[in-house]
Amino acid sequence: MHVPSVQNGDDGMATIRTGNGSGSKSGEAPHRVLILGGGFGGLYAAKALARSPVEVTLVDKRNFHLFQPLLYQVATGGLSPGDIASPLRGIVKKAKNIRVLLADALDLKPDERTVVLDCGEIPYDTLIVATGVSHHYFGHPEWEQSAPGLKTIEDALEIRRRVLNAFECAEREPDDDKRRDWLNFLIVGGGPTGVELAGALAELAHSTLRHNFRRFDPSDAKILLIEGTDRVLPTYPSHLSRKARRYLERLGVTVRTATMVTEIAEKTVTVESDGARETIRAATLLWAAGVRASDWGGILSRTAGTQLDDASRVIVEPDLSVRGHAEILVIGDLAHFAHQGPTALPGVAQVAMQQGAYAANLIRSRLRGRTLARFAYRAKGNLAVIGRNAAVADFGRLRFSGFIAWFVWAFVHVCFLIGFSNKVLVLVQWAWNYFTRNRGARLIGRKGTYEG
Amino acid sequence: MHVPSVQNGDDGMATIRTGNGSGSKSGEAPHRVLILGGGFGGLYAAKALARSPVEVTLVDKRNFHLFQPLLYQVATGGLSPGDIASPLRGIVKKAKNIRVLLADALDLKPDERTVVLDCGEIPYDTLIVATGVSHHYFGHPEWEQSAPGLKTIEDALEIRRRVLNAFECAEREPDDDKRRDWLNFLIVGGGPTGVELAGALAELAHSTLRHNFRRFDPSDAKILLIEGTDRVLPTYPSHLSRKARRYLERLGVTVRTATMVTEIAEKTVTVESDGARETIRAATLLWAAGVRASDWGGILSRTAGTQLDDASRVIVEPDLSVRGHAEILVIGDLAHFAHQGPTALPGVAQVAMQQGAYAANLIRSRLRGRTLARFAYRAKGNLAVIGRNAAVADFGRLRFSGFIAWFVWAFVHVCFLIGFSNKVLVLVQWAWNYFTRNRGARLIGRKGTYEG
Repeated sequence: MHVPSVQNGDDGMATIRTGNGSGSKSGEAPHRVLILGGGFGGLYAAKALARSPVEVTLVDKRNFHLFQPLLYQVATGGLSPGDIASPLRGIVKKAKNIRVLLADALDLKPDERTVVLDCGEIPYDTLIVATGVSHHYFGHPEWEQSAPGLKTIEDALEIRRRVLNAFECAEREPDDDKRRDWLNFLIVGGGPTGVELAGALAELAHSTLRHNFRRFDPSDAKILLIEGTDRVLPTYPSHLSRKARRYLERLGVTVRTATMVTEIAEKTVTVESDGARETIRAATLLWAAGVRASDWGGILSRTAGTQLDDASRVIVEPDLSVRGHAEILVIGDLAHFAHQGPTALPGVAQVAMQQGAYAANLIRSRLRGRTLARFAYRAKGNLAVIGRNAAVADFGRLRFSGFIAWFVWAFVHVCFLIGFSNKVLVLVQWAWNYFTRNRGARLIGRKGTYEG
Repeated sequence: MHVPSVQNGDDGMATIRTGNGSGSKSGEAPHRVLILGGGFGGLYAAKALARSPVEVTLVDKRNFHLFQPLLYQVATGGLSPGDIASPLRGIVKKAKNIRVLLADALDLKPDERTVVLDCGEIPYDTLIVATGVSHHYFGHPEWEQSAPGLKTIEDALEIRRRVLNAFECAEREPDDDKRRDWLNFLIVGGGPTGVELAGALAELAHSTLRHNFRRFDPSDAKILLIEGTDRVLPTYPSHLSRKARRYLERLGVTVRTATMVTEIAEKTVTVESDGARETIRAATLLWAAGVRASDWGGILSRTAGTQLDDASRVIVEPDLSVRGHAEILVIGDLAHFAHQGPTALPGVAQVAMQQGAYAANLIRSRLRGRTLARFAYRAKGNLAVIGRNAAVADFGRLRFSGFIAWFVWAFVHVCFLIGFSNKVLVLVQWAWNYFTRNRGARLIGRKGTYEG
């Protein structure tokens, strides 16, 4: 089956039109932009192309855009999946030149300018690859079973299930030692995700679940955060790292830096620190350490000869295209952009959004026969939240922490909930959770109601 | 492993105390009430026993109470599971004499007054069985695969997945006939669940999804509601049935009454009406027709010799106990109570709640050595909602319909969201959905992102 274009509803797509990617002279047929991935990068590119004289197809495996920065709230029962996910079709429904296709993008034929989907082939004039990254277990994929990471809604629900289940198992466990194990939570990785998860877990155990159990006090739960470098939030200024650590410790989180994980097995982690090895027992292990490029890193390298970095991310040109293929742009977490500053740009939503907008501008400029200055990232600042009224913020010169930072964090996040007609509702939900310390979405999914 | 009592946190429960169920003279040991099931019946019984001189254990397979009357909203993307489910522990956390146990109740030893759980045995002085009902396919369990019913959160998410997926498949389908099949939805059963599902589906297709697709107009979707008796809502007064039918038809639902389903296969239903057979094609089939008692009907019959009705529900005495076992009470949908009016009481939340409260009163009376008048159900009225501003209401003399009924329905339901500290939020969410015609929780779960 051939995937038809957005204009004609029939399957009259047997002949593949080969447009001209850089500087289209397409005549009557509009320039076809194919975007793979509906995350921050892909969605911003699509939105920026609404009402442009191009025909956009946005392909994603899932039918929704996910607001990943709040995923840790789903993992800890503070928000429901529906609060941080918005159907892609709904977001772009008014842009008649954008069509959404729920499909799996499997392969690329760069010479034919065609992407192979699971439901057929689809031609493009410009291809934007924005498929992001997934977890990386540093050569130990078998660790994933014991220590799940947090990238998708399903990941978040699985973590929520494991965390809540651990408390249920503790309530059922007559043996004191075993019960203590159930109440040990260990998080690997002290970046923003790890720090936010640790803070939310501490709140869950020490406030939300208070009086919920009869056999133990949930505030006896131990939350351990392990980081390989010498401080948490290593990409932040060091005084904010210190603040973050202090906030975490105030919430009852034990932080261990300069500690490397060498082995993960079921309910145990072996760590190395100062040359000494140690085995830690914890029933619930969470992974917030490494990421690696999605399959499309490999696909682009194999088919279009693009260069990859150590994490299989695609090394892009200053205009986000890949060498030798000006009509293929790579944006967001999948892109390794090293033309600004000493290191590659970080894999954060802001970079992806700005790259999405740039890609759209580049396409429009090329269609007019013009060029565009190279991509330049304007850092708007970084925020990490630690529990219910502390956060650290780094806006260049302006660096602050505590409640103000938390408030700014909440405000910024809600403002950026794109396509969420219920932005206000999420804000109200947060305010509610904040004042009541409640986390209403504490549901344990059926998959093994408990697995004592 | 023995499940310990609520008082002592250790496992000192090796000897089973045999209390006296009817009129305890327990001395120092408090009367032990064991409740199976945290639905409306079980939860109301537990709440009514808070601060009574009894020791309550509430056992449920799931960690949350589910507000079933709104389940159809989850099935159609209007609400998230977290909006209509509330953690049982949170609801009873302030009642120190109530303990919640996440466990599966497998068997009964009535002579030992002990229930067998998956994690051990638990003794009781009074047992309250409130495990409800599940779907019934009239001797055709194989139909469930093709036409799922709506009883649990997982059911609702599966229905949501199938419904949204059907639209996605229609968008991918180049063949006009096959696309039409994807847009056919058929609901078996014209009781409140069927009527509410049909109304919500019609709204989803005809309002919410407007402009979401490029290949077809979602308002072309056909929603067919099939009912075996001669009118929808057969337990309501007939003029309200007529009203309900008119509302449904106004929303674009095709209603066929006096039509029996004789066969269900994948994507086809065979019906019989006036002696004539007909096969209807519809990609999405939903079941809202029959219910049957949970396993505990059979368990009580086998172990305690209780009588069952045709649907395996337990025929109870006027005080909700089972014959020969005054210490075993059966309440809610599982109970067949035929001591009031010509037919057994209906399986609705109101009956379950009143029976839960009665069971608690009965236990307290017995402990004081008194008796209690037999259970008497006070009908407070019935409400069924049809789309976003129509409903029919039957409050005895007061029978009304239209927007007022819808408003009353919304108000009553939100008031009864027990244990939902976010009652207000759910109300705001509804109001939001109402005014924007939005259904934000339109997420397709991973299990077969689409299954063209």
